[in-house]
Amino acid sequence: MNTPYDTLAHLDATIASRRGADPASSYIAKLLAKAPDAPLKKVAEEAGEFIMACKDAQAGSDKAKIVYEAADLWFHSLVALAHFGLSAQEVLAELARREGTSGLAEKAARPQD
Amino acid sequence: MNTPYDTLAHLDATIASRRGADPASSYIAKLLAKAPDAPLKKVAEEAGEFIMACKDAQAGSDKAKIVYEAADLWFHSLVALAHFGLSAQEVLAELARREGTSGLAEKAARPQD
Amino acid sequence: MNTPYDTLAHLDATIASRRGADPASSYIAKLLAKAPDAPLKKVAEEAGEFIMACKDAQAGSDKAKIVYEAADLWFHSLVALAHFGLSAQEVLAELARREGTSGLAEKAARPQD
Amino acid sequence: MNTPYDTLAHLDATIASRRGADPASSYIAKLLAKAPDAPLKKVAEEAGEFIMACKDAQAGSDKAKIVYEAADLWFHSLVALAHFGLSAQEVLAELARREGTSGLAEKAARPQD
Repeated sequence: MNTPYDTLAHLDATIASRRGADPASSYIAKLLAKAPDAPLKKVAEEAGEFIMACKDAQAGSDKAKIVYEAADLWFHSLVALAHFGLSAQEVLAELARREGTSGLAEKAARPQD
Repeated sequence: MNTPYDTLAHLDATIASRRGADPASSYIAKLLAKAPDAPLKKVAEEAGEFIMACKDAQAGSDKAKIVYEAADLWFHSLVALAHFGLSAQEVLAELARREGTSGLAEKAARPQD
Repeated sequence: MNTPYDTLAHLDATIASRRGADPASSYIAKLLAKAPDAPLKKVAEEAGEFIMACKDAQAGSDKAKIVYEAADLWFHSLVALAHFGLSAQEVLAELARREGTSGLAEKAARPQD
Repeated sequence: MNTPYDTLAHLDATIASRRGADPASSYIAKLLAKAPDAPLKKVAEEAGEFIMACKDAQAGSDKAKIVYEAADLWFHSLVALAHFGLSAQEVLAELARREGTSGLAEKAARPQD
């Protein structure tokens, strides 16, 4: 791992390696065995917890909770993606594609967004 | 940008550069002007859309929709994080920290190791 | 309408009457024309807004917003239910069934009873 | 209880009676002791499960699951409301108020909705 941004490559590999593994062998294997519903249920729950952590920080609480819940949200969405043979790589490619177009798009200052 | 995984570094910079910008100048600036509620409302909505895209793919639909919704979900969570001076870098550091500990945790859980 | 609790019976009838109507004729007809995804997208969004309104009230804001968002959440879930030929009546029957059993469950849990 | 719609009145009373009770005495008391976060986390999770149940029914699964998840969603939102001294009665009053105005509103066929 060279930069913090390489973490996702490593995580993609870890999650992919758990596909088909004994559900009792790890938390990821357990989620994948009941995918997509089990990781999706967590995505909904973690989205709610992320929202609560942000509102708590707005009211003065610790920001560390926000980071923790964002990590939970991204992690469980990666497990759901892995169930469909997808990974962070495809999500990042989509984000990169948008970055490429967004310069122009932002210039147009899309009022409908 | 050297690897697809560097996209987040670039996106972090783009979003951070929009803080305090005229809300009419870009979609990100508009979300930040009404943060944290505006991006958080989108996080909830996009979590729902991600779940629906996964269920549609489970029923035979195109997987591209899953990637698109995951990108939306991550993107809007990054805007919410930026409101609090946080970025993908902190989320990735948290995920890396867990990867470091989960190796041990997963080893402990696997009776055959 | 005799009691506030009859509101749902009236709302069930209103929503059911919009099934198959011209999408341009009303907001409910428009949601039903794109059901289940359109009302479900709103359920996710309104769940997020309900959570935010509760956290805002916890931090001192107006409680009226909570009621408003709860009404939005219930309303859009009713539209999704209507798409499947279901209504508040079935939800209430399920809640009543649980009330019937939970009396016993709660009694069993209370050591002093 | 005379009509299925009276269930909410009964449920309001049950939940309200649990405020301040020993958390070990019932599931409602346990949620209220950690309110608003504990019931709100469930609201997020149950919104996700309601969405999944609807998508499953769209793909041919049992509709009973939809009703079950809607009951879970409404129930946990009622517990969150109770934390703030609110109940189904206020939500129903808001829905009734909208029903009264929606005739006119729907005539206007709000295109922005």
